[in-house]
Amino acid sequence: MTEIERLIQLLARLPGLGPRSARRAALHLLKKRESLMEPLTRSLDQVARTVQTCSICGNLDTADPCGICLDHKRDPALICVLEEVADLWALERTGSFKGRYHVLGGHLSALDGIGPEDLNIGTLVDRAAEEAVTEIILATNLTVDGQTTAHYLAERLAPTGVAVTRLAHGVPVGGELDYLDDGTLTAALRARRTVQD
Amino acid sequence: MTEIERLIQLLARLPGLGPRSARRAALHLLKKRESLMEPLTRSLDQVARTVQTCSICGNLDTADPCGICLDHKRDPALICVLEEVADLWALERTGSFKGRYHVLGGHLSALDGIGPEDLNIGTLVDRAAEEAVTEIILATNLTVDGQTTAHYLAERLAPTGVAVTRLAHGVPVGGELDYLDDGTLTAALRARRTVQD
Repeated sequence: MTEIERLIQLLARLPGLGPRSARRAALHLLKKRESLMEPLTRSLDQVARTVQTCSICGNLDTADPCGICLDHKRDPALICVLEEVADLWALERTGSFKGRYHVLGGHLSALDGIGPEDLNIGTLVDRAAEEAVTEIILATNLTVDGQTTAHYLAERLAPTGVAVTRLAHGVPVGGELDYLDDGTLTAALRARRTVQD
Repeated sequence: MTEIERLIQLLARLPGLGPRSARRAALHLLKKRESLMEPLTRSLDQVARTVQTCSICGNLDTADPCGICLDHKRDPALICVLEEVADLWALERTGSFKGRYHVLGGHLSALDGIGPEDLNIGTLVDRAAEEAVTEIILATNLTVDGQTTAHYLAERLAPTGVAVTRLAHGVPVGGELDYLDDGTLTAALRARRTVQD
């Protein structure tokens, strides 16, 4: 296997790139050696050397504990539980959450053999027992596995006495009823609210 | 900007990856540090150091001249002219061409300000004048720019006296007439052939 074929094979293992787009990406990199290939190589090397998992919340950052856990402006009473760091980034982009996070690193899955001991659950229970924490928001995905994980966490967290909440379910902003699935519509109807004047 | 954001920004510049898939790719790399991130970094570094453009045909290889130009089993009488190295790889995958190649590095484009001097055309005319070469196959894309480039090359190559041919146009193998565009169907009809017994 030549050097280029090896590079293509590695690029094709990235999510979102197949064999064809990996070939295009490799050629693009070779065309943009100085402006893209070299910076990317340096960036990969630097990220590999500096980025680590936060031992408190499971976030990725160059520091441990991460910037969010160390940020005194963030509310220590609230912990939002997420499956992946990508979900944390999604919430941070909204700018609407000022508490702290806890990244599980996945969800329970009987099919894939992922049990509670494979996820960051023990540390979450420890954090829930801390005095400052008053509410834990379960924000796992609304998939079967995500909801199973949320149910499991609610049970595990019950003895700690903190309030356990979950994200509201309903019609997405900009959503058209005609295109919504039955489950979402049913959830939105059940969780209907009084119109405020 | 953090190290991870920088990596995401660079990944998003690869063709086929947008901001969202670049984020997913970065997280995937961080999850697979030893099995993917480190090998990819090494591979990029190695490709950047070793892969060069063949001074004869414009192909990419670790040697200059490239393996194809140096392969004595390949017919030196035939040169297939292509726009990009990706096209060369596509032809090599078919295994049906045993001549040599010439990669232009793009196509003529008035819109993008790409003229003959920006492409590998001078070296092609020089090669066409070599004694061993008897036929030049123009295999530029069947786009307007690709065809303009082919017409221009045919004119430039006319004085050298070599036979200039182009790929056949017609119905692709597996193609259904109902789904074909009018141009292809017209070309296929014009170029119809007698059925052989």
